[in-house]
Amino acid sequence: MKRDEGKIRIIPLGGLGQIGLNMTAFEYGDSIIVVDCGLSFPEDDMLGIDLVIPDVTYLEENIDRVKAFFITHGHEDHIGAIPYILQKVNVPIFATTLTMGLIAHKLEEHKLTDIVNCQTVEFGDHVRINDFTVEFIRTNHSIVDAAALAIYSPAGIVIHTGDFKVDYTPVFGDTIDLQRFAELGKRGVLALLCDSTNAERPGFTPSEKNLGKIFDNIMQEHSKNRIIVATFASNVDRVQQIINAAYKVGRKVVVEGRSMVNIIETATKLNRLNVPENTLIDIENLRDYPEEKTVIITTGSQGESMAALSRMAMGIHKKVKIGPNDTVIFSSHPIPGNEKAVTKIINELFKMGADVIFQDVHVSGHACAEEIKLIYNLTQPKYSIPVHGEYKHLIAQAKIAEELGIAKDNIFLMETGNVLELGEDGAEVIGNVPVGAILVDGLGIGDVGNSVLKERQKLAEDGIVVVVVAFDAYSGQVLAGPDLISRGFVYSKGADDLMMEAQTAASEAIDRLLGRNVSDWSKLKSSLRDSLGEFFWKKTKRRPMILPFFEEI
Amino acid sequence: MKRDEGKIRIIPLGGLGQIGLNMTAFEYGDSIIVVDCGLSFPEDDMLGIDLVIPDVTYLEENIDRVKAFFITHGHEDHIGAIPYILQKVNVPIFATTLTMGLIAHKLEEHKLTDIVNCQTVEFGDHVRINDFTVEFIRTNHSIVDAAALAIYSPAGIVIHTGDFKVDYTPVFGDTIDLQRFAELGKRGVLALLCDSTNAERPGFTPSEKNLGKIFDNIMQEHSKNRIIVATFASNVDRVQQIINAAYKVGRKVVVEGRSMVNIIETATKLNRLNVPENTLIDIENLRDYPEEKTVIITTGSQGESMAALSRMAMGIHKKVKIGPNDTVIFSSHPIPGNEKAVTKIINELFKMGADVIFQDVHVSGHACAEEIKLIYNLTQPKYSIPVHGEYKHLIAQAKIAEELGIAKDNIFLMETGNVLELGEDGAEVIGNVPVGAILVDGLGIGDVGNSVLKERQKLAEDGIVVVVVAFDAYSGQVLAGPDLISRGFVYSKGADDLMMEAQTAASEAIDRLLGRNVSDWSKLKSSLRDSLGEFFWKKTKRRPMILPFFEEI
Repeated sequence: MKRDEGKIRIIPLGGLGQIGLNMTAFEYGDSIIVVDCGLSFPEDDMLGIDLVIPDVTYLEENIDRVKAFFITHGHEDHIGAIPYILQKVNVPIFATTLTMGLIAHKLEEHKLTDIVNCQTVEFGDHVRINDFTVEFIRTNHSIVDAAALAIYSPAGIVIHTGDFKVDYTPVFGDTIDLQRFAELGKRGVLALLCDSTNAERPGFTPSEKNLGKIFDNIMQEHSKNRIIVATFASNVDRVQQIINAAYKVGRKVVVEGRSMVNIIETATKLNRLNVPENTLIDIENLRDYPEEKTVIITTGSQGESMAALSRMAMGIHKKVKIGPNDTVIFSSHPIPGNEKAVTKIINELFKMGADVIFQDVHVSGHACAEEIKLIYNLTQPKYSIPVHGEYKHLIAQAKIAEELGIAKDNIFLMETGNVLELGEDGAEVIGNVPVGAILVDGLGIGDVGNSVLKERQKLAEDGIVVVVVAFDAYSGQVLAGPDLISRGFVYSKGADDLMMEAQTAASEAIDRLLGRNVSDWSKLKSSLRDSLGEFFWKKTKRRPMILPFFEEI
Repeated sequence: MKRDEGKIRIIPLGGLGQIGLNMTAFEYGDSIIVVDCGLSFPEDDMLGIDLVIPDVTYLEENIDRVKAFFITHGHEDHIGAIPYILQKVNVPIFATTLTMGLIAHKLEEHKLTDIVNCQTVEFGDHVRINDFTVEFIRTNHSIVDAAALAIYSPAGIVIHTGDFKVDYTPVFGDTIDLQRFAELGKRGVLALLCDSTNAERPGFTPSEKNLGKIFDNIMQEHSKNRIIVATFASNVDRVQQIINAAYKVGRKVVVEGRSMVNIIETATKLNRLNVPENTLIDIENLRDYPEEKTVIITTGSQGESMAALSRMAMGIHKKVKIGPNDTVIFSSHPIPGNEKAVTKIINELFKMGADVIFQDVHVSGHACAEEIKLIYNLTQPKYSIPVHGEYKHLIAQAKIAEELGIAKDNIFLMETGNVLELGEDGAEVIGNVPVGAILVDGLGIGDVGNSVLKERQKLAEDGIVVVVVAFDAYSGQVLAGPDLISRGFVYSKGADDLMMEAQTAASEAIDRLLGRNVSDWSKLKSSLRDSLGEFFWKKTKRRPMILPFFEEI
């Protein structure tokens, strides 16, 4: 890969064509800076995996050139990998107030506070690192203190919007700094990396503030009921509006769910949330108030099986029993893949007699088509690089960019690992760097790979049959076994006959092989595996994993 | 459960509060008739399961009273369990032409054609069985020949709509027989069991015929492209309209996917599909025609991983390679739970350069709120029994029924197994019968239960570690082992140290136990399991299944 040192290189290390794992490296000369450091949650076929982080081999191999991380906002898909990655790539992190508060909390949990250099910035701050200067520009999003980044280099200005929307009436803080986008546009923007999540949707995303009135109405209409609101823990503005609506009608508020409690504490400490006195009560004191005078704000709006709302819906929550006096509100929209889990909880709540409101109590945090057009119009970039979202969303933004007059050759639908080299006189993908997804399972980072996942899938599908045989070390004769035991295959009590027959089949197979003087254990094992596999397939049309285990005495 | 022999009893044996498994028993005096016999597809936590059928213990225990099955239409969730259930409950089946064609195909596959008594009926036919008479009434749905049933008994008339919509301009056949619903309403309807699937949606479901024009437009706008349409195999009207649109512009049509081929053959044979001559070609001959002169109709619109469209999207289809000259149309809407799988395929197709159209090329087959109101208005039932759909949909229909003036006490939100006894002078749930879901895995019907599923879940989560020890039968001393082998736990090559340490831990545990003269194998095994479990949890924060295997020599 031949580099032009007068140009800037943009390298998505995660997050393009994947959800989560957001991480993009920017290179100029001898410096590399990195935007965001996100995780993603496991796909359905990643059995047993807790979370997924980006492979940063490229950063590790170029560790001397890596100067800093810049974080756009505090969502897990932008900050979640920090405790894992910063252990290997320990450079300063720059972020705005709430974002840094959430990062700090994470670092504490991982006992890394002393190791990592955290620098909190204000909107408008410029951070200079060698040839790069990075400016934080205020945006709006479903979390407070979200920033876009203007990345200045001798090759030109690149703007990365982060996740954003345009909210003219935000709940906390000001509207996205559209004037600054315009100023930069006037100066000349080399490239725009813009959020694609809602690019398929026409029009504008409504303001977060619209929900304030909706919560007021619900509190009035359901004045005889306890109200339970499930929403994203990180949406501090949403929580603020729920608290405000509760306070207006004199309801006490309980916060339930670990992540909700954490974020509310952090946001309150940092003055991003303003809770009127005597409004929050502990869940232990819930019973001291009439039900219709309380509101519970809870996690679990995505149907997460261990979250507080799920436990309520399954009737196993220790403090909250759902009944006909409850109105449960989903102030959220299911993230793709969670639809069924969410619906299951809604059905369970209805069965318990609760009233459930799950439509029109949410607004998105991402820009729709008209907002995307606005940002393009203000910044007038030479190159368009759609980011954030699935491939179909990138395509949708590319179509918008084309409509707005950007030449097709100047629109780059990048894939993770691509190295895009940009300058005033041209842009092209000049190569690829190694990228990938590292699986985190318990304490193991990367020790579960494809072969282990395939084994888990096979085990999940039809279970396992272990066949143990003990051989005499000298004569090679069978001393004991074959003995069979299964797990996840058939219910043993009902399958005695089957397992007896299988034992006979295994025994015959071994005799046959030994009779033919096959004594190589790997050959014996593989023949035994084949014979038993065929036997079980014929009898059950299933293919359990067959694990022969030979013991030499 | 005390029965009033002058009343009719309605017993949902599946399908209420569950998706699929549709089956309802109607009892009067000594006779039981059953409506529908559906399967459902496994939930996410039913690892390795192929399909699910209803538990018909109640029918088996009352086999002498069971007289017949009446099938409303040919979808899997209404006919799929027939080959399994009819082996145990072998009574005549009544259904309309296409429905019976699809049932017959199923029975052939299971080699049951000679065993089952199949009776094809026409709309308007009355089937008399003891005190029951059942009339088939034409409806509209996303499959041809769908029927509602009027069930006459001395206790009154009960109407079961089946799955339905109101289509004033159907593609094949006539509009739902609204006049007959009205006539019965005039005579007096005791109870209405009405489809709830779309009860949450306001308004009317659009006509299937609307799609004809949409396909015409797509064929014109994409006249330079090959067109690939994915849709439900059973939606014969949809297939007809795609074929019509292709024929108009002189395109040849290929049908791909086993279920699509089957249903098209059956529907053509029964005159439910009319394919112009020289239009269908074999997939082998696809290369003989220019791409822009072909249309491929395929299975896989739900993202099913083994279906033809998935194979195309993954680049592993033997006959169809996707490229920039393809326009792929999803003429479908993802069934809840399939959203992510469908989106994944859309993204892959976009990456291969294809144009993908996945919105507004589908209409539902179920009645929306206004259609439901129409049926209530025509039939004026005394009792309302919402059926078909999740619990939240039943609730939505119950609200509609209440709005229309049906007394709340006359609306029954039933659960599977409830026995509802109805007469002119009252209705109540008088008891419950045993119901449940039987899991089918390969050839096994019901041999995988909760314990096996739990084992599979545990295996899927963290894999398994097998520990083999050989003991001397006389002295009780260890002859060989403990030897450890794992699957789905950690990648063995990277985990040699861990497994060595674990072996030492196991060895020490055994020595400790033998030293304490513990010789009971079950105690030894459980202690060994605990010690190793703790060891692995400390080292990895994972909990593999630990399977001790003792061999006596």
